[in-house]
Amino acid sequence: MARLVYGRQLAEKRRKITEYVQRNPVLHDAGEQAFMTREEKYDDAARKTSEIFRRLDEFGTYPGEESFAHVINEVIGIDGYPLALQHVMFLPALLGQGDEQLKAKYAARAQRGEIIGTYAQTEMGHGTNLRALETTAHYDKKTQEFVINSPTTSSIKWWPGNLGKSSSYAIVAAQLHIDGKAIGPHNFLVQLRCEKTHQPLKGILVGDIGPKISYNTTDNGFLKLDHVRIPREQMLMKHAKVLPDGTYVKPPHAKIGYGAMVHVRSHMIRAQAHMLAMAITIAIRYSAIRRQGEIRNGGGEVKILDYQTQQHRLFPQLARTYAYFFAGAEVVALYQKTLEKIDEGDVTLMTDLHAVTSGMKAVVSFETGNAIEQCRMACGGHGYSAASRFPEIYGVQIGGCTYEGENMVMLLQLARYLMKAADQCQKGQKLSPLLEYLKGKEKKSRLSDAEDREKLVKAFEYVSRSVVFRAHERLAALQKSGMSAEAAWQANAVEMTRASRAHTRLFIAQAFHQKVLSVKTADRKINNVLDQLCALFLNYELLDMSHYLLEDQYMTTKQIGIIRENVYRLLKDLRPNVVSLVDSFEISDRELRSVLGRRDGNVYDNLLKWAQSNPLNKEDVLPGFKTSLQPMMARAREASKL
Amino acid sequence: MARLVYGRQLAEKRRKITEYVQRNPVLHDAGEQAFMTREEKYDDAARKTSEIFRRLDEFGTYPGEESFAHVINEVIGIDGYPLALQHVMFLPALLGQGDEQLKAKYAARAQRGEIIGTYAQTEMGHGTNLRALETTAHYDKKTQEFVINSPTTSSIKWWPGNLGKSSSYAIVAAQLHIDGKAIGPHNFLVQLRCEKTHQPLKGILVGDIGPKISYNTTDNGFLKLDHVRIPREQMLMKHAKVLPDGTYVKPPHAKIGYGAMVHVRSHMIRAQAHMLAMAITIAIRYSAIRRQGEIRNGGGEVKILDYQTQQHRLFPQLARTYAYFFAGAEVVALYQKTLEKIDEGDVTLMTDLHAVTSGMKAVVSFETGNAIEQCRMACGGHGYSAASRFPEIYGVQIGGCTYEGENMVMLLQLARYLMKAADQCQKGQKLSPLLEYLKGKEKKSRLSDAEDREKLVKAFEYVSRSVVFRAHERLAALQKSGMSAEAAWQANAVEMTRASRAHTRLFIAQAFHQKVLSVKTADRKINNVLDQLCALFLNYELLDMSHYLLEDQYMTTKQIGIIRENVYRLLKDLRPNVVSLVDSFEISDRELRSVLGRRDGNVYDNLLKWAQSNPLNKEDVLPGFKTSLQPMMARAREASKL
Repeated sequence: MARLVYGRQLAEKRRKITEYVQRNPVLHDAGEQAFMTREEKYDDAARKTSEIFRRLDEFGTYPGEESFAHVINEVIGIDGYPLALQHVMFLPALLGQGDEQLKAKYAARAQRGEIIGTYAQTEMGHGTNLRALETTAHYDKKTQEFVINSPTTSSIKWWPGNLGKSSSYAIVAAQLHIDGKAIGPHNFLVQLRCEKTHQPLKGILVGDIGPKISYNTTDNGFLKLDHVRIPREQMLMKHAKVLPDGTYVKPPHAKIGYGAMVHVRSHMIRAQAHMLAMAITIAIRYSAIRRQGEIRNGGGEVKILDYQTQQHRLFPQLARTYAYFFAGAEVVALYQKTLEKIDEGDVTLMTDLHAVTSGMKAVVSFETGNAIEQCRMACGGHGYSAASRFPEIYGVQIGGCTYEGENMVMLLQLARYLMKAADQCQKGQKLSPLLEYLKGKEKKSRLSDAEDREKLVKAFEYVSRSVVFRAHERLAALQKSGMSAEAAWQANAVEMTRASRAHTRLFIAQAFHQKVLSVKTADRKINNVLDQLCALFLNYELLDMSHYLLEDQYMTTKQIGIIRENVYRLLKDLRPNVVSLVDSFEISDRELRSVLGRRDGNVYDNLLKWAQSNPLNKEDVLPGFKTSLQPMMARAREASKL
Repeated sequence: MARLVYGRQLAEKRRKITEYVQRNPVLHDAGEQAFMTREEKYDDAARKTSEIFRRLDEFGTYPGEESFAHVINEVIGIDGYPLALQHVMFLPALLGQGDEQLKAKYAARAQRGEIIGTYAQTEMGHGTNLRALETTAHYDKKTQEFVINSPTTSSIKWWPGNLGKSSSYAIVAAQLHIDGKAIGPHNFLVQLRCEKTHQPLKGILVGDIGPKISYNTTDNGFLKLDHVRIPREQMLMKHAKVLPDGTYVKPPHAKIGYGAMVHVRSHMIRAQAHMLAMAITIAIRYSAIRRQGEIRNGGGEVKILDYQTQQHRLFPQLARTYAYFFAGAEVVALYQKTLEKIDEGDVTLMTDLHAVTSGMKAVVSFETGNAIEQCRMACGGHGYSAASRFPEIYGVQIGGCTYEGENMVMLLQLARYLMKAADQCQKGQKLSPLLEYLKGKEKKSRLSDAEDREKLVKAFEYVSRSVVFRAHERLAALQKSGMSAEAAWQANAVEMTRASRAHTRLFIAQAFHQKVLSVKTADRKINNVLDQLCALFLNYELLDMSHYLLEDQYMTTKQIGIIRENVYRLLKDLRPNVVSLVDSFEISDRELRSVLGRRDGNVYDNLLKWAQSNPLNKEDVLPGFKTSLQPMMARAREASKL
C-alpha cells in the first residue's frame, strides 16, 4: 500500500532514509522538542542541518527531491530549518529569474552552502496584493545602482522564512522606479549580513518576528532597508531588464512571475496529506489501545475504536488522507505536464493549473485542519498534551490556509476561471477537459445503490455544475439590476467561493475514484480496502453536500438515506483494516515524535516518563512558589492566629 | 449594550476593576507573556496571585463571583493561575460533599489561602467513565484509616489543574473497598506536600504533566499514591459515610455527585462566549484598519472589512457571540432555578439541567472553536503570530471540547434524554417545557419572508423534531432487526448525536430570539442592531442546516433562497455597526493582550516593537548559527577553493 501512496521509488527511499537516520545518533534530537525554547530549537536544527548537508551523498537525496523532505522530517521535524527557504524559494527564484551573470556569481555558492538566502516579498502591510507593495527600488543612473528602501513601517518585509537570523542574502521584491516613473514590482538580490561576521550591514534592520502558533524553529523575519544601494546587475533580469542607461525592457510574458507560487502550491497538497497521515496514524493507533466505557453492561471496557462515534470521527479522515495523496499526485502530474507544454511553447495549460492549484490549496488545507483537530479531539485529554504531537502538527499544517495565497483569495481566483467557463459553456464554446462536466444535463440522480461509484461521481458533477451556474446567474442578475461589474462581483463573492469549493471537491473525488479504477495490485485485499475507503469518501462528502443534492430535487430524501446508511455500513466494514491502513503510511516513531502514536502501543509508561522529564519537574518546588505563594500562605496562617 | 451582555451590575464592576488594575502597576504583566517560558509564566502568575489576594477588599469581588473572573483575566490572563482549582473545584467539593467536621478543619483554611487544594479525579487511563477509575481506598478497620493507592501506571491521577506544583492537598476520587468488597468511587481528602517545605510527602509522586496547546501557566499534574494512609475522617462524608466499624452508609440520592460537573458546565457557556468575544473583537478591529486590494480598479485599497467574504466570515461569529452570551445566561438561570427547587426537595429539574448543559457544552465549545479559527484566519498572516493573541485564545478555548466531559459523550448523554422524550411523546405523556416542541405537527414551513422570526424559530423546532424522531425510529428499527438494546444504541450513536446538536441549536436560537423580544432599551438604535444580529444568527444557522429543511420538503428551494439572500443583505446592513458591537464587549487592551486588536488601531508600529523585543533578537547572531552554520559555510568556501 505504501507504494500506492508514495510510488515504488519514493517508498523504498523513505525506508532507507529512516534506517540510516536510526543508525546515526548524531542525527537524532538532542532532547524532546516540545520542551525546548526557540533558541534551543534553532540551535538543534542548525546542528542537524550541518550534519545532513555533510551526508547528502550518503543519503542519496538532495534538496528539491521529494525524498529530501523525508530526511528533514525524520531528522529535524516539520517546523522548518535554517536552509529551508534557500532551497524552496531563494534558489528557484534566482535560477528562474536571474540572468546568467547573476546566476554564475551566486547560484553555485548557494548550492554549496557558502551563503544562505531567502525570498522577501510579503510586507507588514501587504501580502497578497503584489501591486501594492511599498518597498521601492529607485535606479540611480549615475552610479548604475538601485537604491532599495522601506519608506514606511508597513513596508517592512515581514514573514519570510529564515530571514530573521539565518540569511545573509535575500531576493527582495520592490517597486522599480526609473527617472521618477513607477514601473511595478521586480526582484532584487540584496546582501543583508556580512559573510564573515554575519552582522547586519549598514542600512539593514533585520530580526525575527517572534513566536507563532508553530514553525517556531523557523526564524521568520522582518527587514527594513534604509536606502541600501546595490549594483544594477543584482536585479533579477532574466525576463525584465534595466539597461545601464535606465532603459526598461519588458518581460516577454506577463504571467511568468507566477511560476514560483504555482510550484509551491502544486506540491503543497501532498505535504498537507502527509500531515493528515501523521495525525490519523496517532489517532487510530491510540484508539486501538485506549479502553473506555462498556458497550454491553458487564462486558468489560472496550477499545474506543469500537464506538461508532469514534469511527465516524476518524475513518472519513483516513479516507481523506488517501484522497489527498492521490489528488495531490494528480496536481503534480498536471504541473509537470504544464511545464513540458510550456517548454514546447504552449502556455494554455497554465490557466488550468493555476485554477486547480488555487482551489486545491484552499479546500485541502482547510479540510485537513478540521480533520487533524477531529483526530486530536478523538484522543481526549491526552490529545491536548504536546506529548501527542497534535498541537505541532495542527499548528504547522494550518499555516497552509494562510501562506502561499490566503484561502479566500484563492477560491475567488478559481471562481474567476469558473465564471468565465460558465460564459463559454453558455456560448457553446470549447472547454478545458477539466470543465467538460459543465455541459452535463442530468437533473435527476438515478442512484439506487450507494455502491454505484459512477452515479456517486455524477452527483459531484451535478453539485458543482449547479452551484457554478447558480453563482453565474446571480452575478448576471446583480449586474442587470444596475450594479457595476466590480460591485456585482463583490456582492456575489460568497456564492462564488461555494462554486469553487464544489468544483474542487469534484476534482478530488474524481482523482480518488480514477486511482482506484486504475490500480491493479496482485493483492486482492488491498484492492478491496482501497475500494471501501473510496466509497466512504464519496458517500461522506456527498452527505456533507446533501443540501445541494436536495435543492431542485436532484436526489430524493430516500436516496440521501441510502448514502447515509452506506456510510454507517462502511465504518463497520473498514474497522478491521484501519490499523494496517495507517501503518501503510510507514511513518516511523522518530518522524512521528508522538507518545500516543507509538507503534508498540506502550503509551502510558512513556507518557509518565515524558512528563517526568519536563523542565517544570527539575525542582520539586518552583521558584515562583517560594517567592510568592509560600509568603502568601504564611501571612494567612499568621493572620488566622491573631 | 454592555449592560445587556453582562447585566448592569457586572458591567459596572468590570469597568471599575479595569480602572483599578490600570492604576496599579504591581498588577501588570512583568513582560510579554508570549515570550515567557512556562517557569516564567508560573512565576509571574504566582506573584500576581499573591497581589490579587492581598487586595480582594479593594477589588470588592471574591472568588466564585463572575466579576472575579474579570480580575483574573485582566491581571493574570486566560490560561490559569495557581489558585484556580482551589476556588472552582476544591472548595465547592469540600463544602458540598464534606461533613461538618472536615469542613471545620479545612474549608476556612483554604478560603484564607493557608493551604492550596485541587480536585483529582481523572486518571491517565480513565476520564469520563468514573466507575472504571483504578485508584483504590481500602478501609483499615484496625487503624481506622483509608489506604489510598495507585495500583497501575494507568491509575495515576493525570490532568488536574494546579496539582503538579501548587497544591498541598487534593480531593482524590478512589474506589472504596471495605472488607475486600468494592463499593464504588468516593472522594477523599489527601495531603500531598508538607505545609512548611512544600516537599511531597512519603508515598506521593507528584509533578507537572508537561506542555500543552495552552494553559501553560497552569501546572496540570500527575499523582501516584503508594499506599498512603489517611484518617477515616478525611473521606468526604456529607452523603455517603463509612462508620468506624466499617459499616457503609449509602447516600440518600444517587445523582448527588454530579453537582460539581453540572455547576462548571452551566457556567462554561458564558466563559466560552467571552473567548469568542475576544477573538471577534480582534478580528473586526483589525479588519477595519487593514487595507488590501481594490474593489474598483484605481479606487484605492479598501478596508478588508468591506469584502463580502470577510463579512461572511466574521459577522456570523459576532452574532454567535451574542447568542452564546444570552443562551449562556439562560443556562445559568436554569441552574439557579434547579438549585432552588432542590432546596425545596424537588429534583425533577436536575434531569433537564443535566441534558441542557451537556448539549450546550458540546455544541458551544465546538462552534466557538471553529469561530475563533475563522476570526484568526480572517486576519491573514498576522493572525498566525502570537502577537495577535489568537493562538492563546484558541488554545485555551478549544480545551472546552474535551474537559468537563468529552463532547461526544456529552451529546450521547443528551441523546438518552431525547430518546426517552420521544418515547414519552409517542405515548402521549407529559413532557418538560423544554421538550414541548416535540409534539409539534407542522410539516411545511409557511416562511415567505426571512424577517419573520417566529417562522424561523419554528423551522429550528421542525429540524430538531425531525432529527430526534428519525434517530428514535432508527433505534427502534435496529432493535426490531434483532439487535440487543445496547448494540442498537451503538449502531445508532451518530444519528443520535445529530439529534442532540439540532435540539441544542434550537435552544440557543430560542434564547437569542426571546432575549431580543424581551429587551426594551430606550435606545432604538441598539434595539435595531440587536434585532439584525439575531436575524443573521437565525438565517445563518438555518442555512447551515438546510439539508434537514429540504429533506421531506419542509421548505422549498425557493424558501432556502430567501434565507440565503437575507444573510447577504444582513451582512451589508450590519457593516456600519460591527465595530461598535465589538467595542460593546468592553474588553480592555490589557485583557486582550493583542497587538492586532488594539483599540487605537495603531497596529503596525506596535507589531514592530513587539517583534524587536522577542528573545531571538537579544543577539544579532544566534549561538546555534555560530556553532553550526558558520563552520558549515566556511567548510563550503574552503572546499570550493580547492
